[in-house]
Amino acid sequence: MTVVDAVRGWRRDHAAEVLREFAGLVALDNVTGDVPALRRNAGEIVERLRARGVEAESVGPDGVAPLVIGRVPGRPGAPRLGLYAHYDGQPVTPADWTTPPFEPTLVGPDGATVPLPAPGAPVDDEWRLRARAAADDKAPIAALLAALDALGGTEREVELVLCFEGEEESGSPHLGELLLAYADRLATDAWLICDGPVRQGNAPQVVLGVRGFTDLELTVYGPAGELHSGHYGNWAPNPALALARLLASMKDDAGRVTIDGFTADTRTPTGAEQAALDAMPPVEDELLDRLGLAAAEVPGSRLLDRLMLPSLNVRGLRAADVGPAARNVIPASATASIDIRLAAGDDPRRMLDRVRDHVAEHGYLVLDREPTDAERRGHPAIARIEARVGYPAARARADLPIVGHLLELAGLAAGRPAVALPTLGGSVPLHHFEQALGTPAVIMPIANPDNNQHAADENLRLGNLWYGVDLFALLLTTPWHERDRSSGGA
Amino acid sequence: MTVVDAVRGWRRDHAAEVLREFAGLVALDNVTGDVPALRRNAGEIVERLRARGVEAESVGPDGVAPLVIGRVPGRPGAPRLGLYAHYDGQPVTPADWTTPPFEPTLVGPDGATVPLPAPGAPVDDEWRLRARAAADDKAPIAALLAALDALGGTEREVELVLCFEGEEESGSPHLGELLLAYADRLATDAWLICDGPVRQGNAPQVVLGVRGFTDLELTVYGPAGELHSGHYGNWAPNPALALARLLASMKDDAGRVTIDGFTADTRTPTGAEQAALDAMPPVEDELLDRLGLAAAEVPGSRLLDRLMLPSLNVRGLRAADVGPAARNVIPASATASIDIRLAAGDDPRRMLDRVRDHVAEHGYLVLDREPTDAERRGHPAIARIEARVGYPAARARADLPIVGHLLELAGLAAGRPAVALPTLGGSVPLHHFEQALGTPAVIMPIANPDNNQHAADENLRLGNLWYGVDLFALLLTTPWHERDRSSGGA
Repeated sequence: MTVVDAVRGWRRDHAAEVLREFAGLVALDNVTGDVPALRRNAGEIVERLRARGVEAESVGPDGVAPLVIGRVPGRPGAPRLGLYAHYDGQPVTPADWTTPPFEPTLVGPDGATVPLPAPGAPVDDEWRLRARAAADDKAPIAALLAALDALGGTEREVELVLCFEGEEESGSPHLGELLLAYADRLATDAWLICDGPVRQGNAPQVVLGVRGFTDLELTVYGPAGELHSGHYGNWAPNPALALARLLASMKDDAGRVTIDGFTADTRTPTGAEQAALDAMPPVEDELLDRLGLAAAEVPGSRLLDRLMLPSLNVRGLRAADVGPAARNVIPASATASIDIRLAAGDDPRRMLDRVRDHVAEHGYLVLDREPTDAERRGHPAIARIEARVGYPAARARADLPIVGHLLELAGLAAGRPAVALPTLGGSVPLHHFEQALGTPAVIMPIANPDNNQHAADENLRLGNLWYGVDLFALLLTTPWHERDRSSGGA
Repeated sequence: MTVVDAVRGWRRDHAAEVLREFAGLVALDNVTGDVPALRRNAGEIVERLRARGVEAESVGPDGVAPLVIGRVPGRPGAPRLGLYAHYDGQPVTPADWTTPPFEPTLVGPDGATVPLPAPGAPVDDEWRLRARAAADDKAPIAALLAALDALGGTEREVELVLCFEGEEESGSPHLGELLLAYADRLATDAWLICDGPVRQGNAPQVVLGVRGFTDLELTVYGPAGELHSGHYGNWAPNPALALARLLASMKDDAGRVTIDGFTADTRTPTGAEQAALDAMPPVEDELLDRLGLAAAEVPGSRLLDRLMLPSLNVRGLRAADVGPAARNVIPASATASIDIRLAAGDDPRRMLDRVRDHVAEHGYLVLDREPTDAERRGHPAIARIEARVGYPAARARADLPIVGHLLELAGLAAGRPAVALPTLGGSVPLHHFEQALGTPAVIMPIANPDNNQHAADENLRLGNLWYGVDLFALLLTTPWHERDRSSGGA
């Protein structure tokens, strides 16, 4: 009997207990930023891990939600795999929920409440457990606990190193420093970031990276105050039009960013990455229809290909007023809010410098504050750029041994082939793992895509919980070697 | 003794009575839109005119502030001159006033209250009468009444046709139709629009025109709703950037509007107009300093020259949000609010058509409403243009006999040379006079420039009141011929 068969047999017999444990975890309120509540969550997780013989403890500075770190021992000399999840959740608006967010409720496909089954009673894969953090992101923690129970005394070919964060939904303000501070205990051969959903249709996937992020506010100046457009229009310079010209200079009609050097550092997709991209089913026609678009910015382009390049996005524009509030004025200033998504290789600081240089090359005096009267009188074109230096993209190589290993085990656990996605469109500070610990990190999601992440009625489909249990059991019992260990010590 | 000398002698002796009559006029509250109050004003004006032998009456539809029309007879066969003023005033915020807006108060140059002088007592030209509408625009009415008294039985070489409006501060909604309805009684050889201030430093001026006005809201569309800039940025088209490109295509770096035909109908300044422009003292250096600018939109250009061309002004921009409220989205739409000031010759409807054509030539489907789902799917670029057809500019020819006549008499009345300004930068529907009555109209202001027009503590400098009295007396007694009357009837 294979490990998967054994685990499946065990969890069919113990589904009710697994569900009760999962429900107990998500019944703990865990709104991000609520440190006392999050300390209770961390304590509970540590206790449940220790009950399974796992070394675990809460670490971190006072006054912040702790990091739970732990170790699931393997056989002597086993490779080490890191497993990251987060136990804090998004804020809740209870009025928007069908049932209270911290009263876990089992629901059927028709939305009707299902009583928690009695021990030994069958459960339906299509049932869902509804509660805040059921999917994002306590599901991997519950799946791990069940996998440990299912394996019992089976020898573990892999040692698991655990890292459960309590500040993810607050932007992970302490993650980088905590990884560095506990680098010795968190040393692994690879990290799995267990967060986010699998693909549409519940197809299993391994995600190799995320885009980085940085942003800025660009303001250009006209007269010191709004002017009457009759008395001064055609004579006094108009900052809204100047801003339009400046923005238009940043991207051409073909959708290509024309800022010098914008893609100079961007890593060209490797053959394996390009092959992974090409293997993905096309989604563009359906997307265009759903989004009400006739064509992509670069007509005919594929979404996934475009995510491999840095983007320049005008996320907002503002000058004086429009609509009924419009006044007949020359605005005093005009502002564009811009976010830049970074691809692998791009450096956030260097990208911001390039935008600054571009604006300066277009004749602007570039400041990071309001101009003085003397600067206004001395420079016909003044721009203020207020930048926030963000963080780089992270992208693991598609040909790493861990990637092939995960694809194989995810395929076994799901009973259908898994695919490797080179990058998500979104940004999370995944780079911390590679920067602080020097090991590759890949995203290994288990939640269903329609889990209502961040919204009301968040839920986890039970079939996806079982996928997690099977996957973690396989990971613990299947040998894999990220690198040749014969030539050196651990 | 000249007429001016005689009038000055009379008003020195009767200054107190003139002031009392003026104070009585501005003591009548006259906030625009307050029809009962404005009817009281009209009735009072009609009564005071009739007391001087002037034919006068209130006309117009029920429920609106009436038009006061009248006739000051001249010698048989005298040329006819129209005199327009308005008796309604801007709304008031009494808390902002030093003294109540409808309790006329005489103040000295130091701001101290001066008691109304006793009959025969001297008055100082630098005193001011403070009250709503003292300058804007009951001053010409008070000056006319005083001029009639001063002239007494002196033969009048010119017949005056009077038109005092009660809806100017509400945008003159009925003026055009009332001028048409009473065109027979309002037939003249020329119209003087007595409104607005003289030049800085109290230099007398005749203004030959105003700019016309029309405006529009231009919205371009992206996806049907805001999109996550990570998941879709670089693939879904960004309407803020599309709007920037479209606006940038409308005006070049040199400040020239690049919309096809934008100045095709614009009347080139005549030699006389250009000479008048060239005669104006330069104001640009002082303006740049006051407005906090290093250079004009067209560096080195003169304000007055630029007012002779139509302008395209982006008065507002809006897409999603900027600053602390900015979200990481691709906006669903982006809007520019645009006002167009028209020069002599430009047609508002044709100008709007040219903007529409320009947008269409840039590949946009141009609508005047939200696009349908089918239109979104069928057209990669969609713009909505919501236009309000405004009104044309008005500009009298600088070589008309009335212009030279006014410059001469204004110079005599002020004791210093008067200048002709081809156009104001602002827009008022002056075209009504030319369109409805077929006669040229020029603006003949008498108020001081620092009169606090539309604001608290509005006031008229007494020297400017005397300028009006002298000017109207001269106009009534100095023959002038706008056209050769020998070849036809009246």
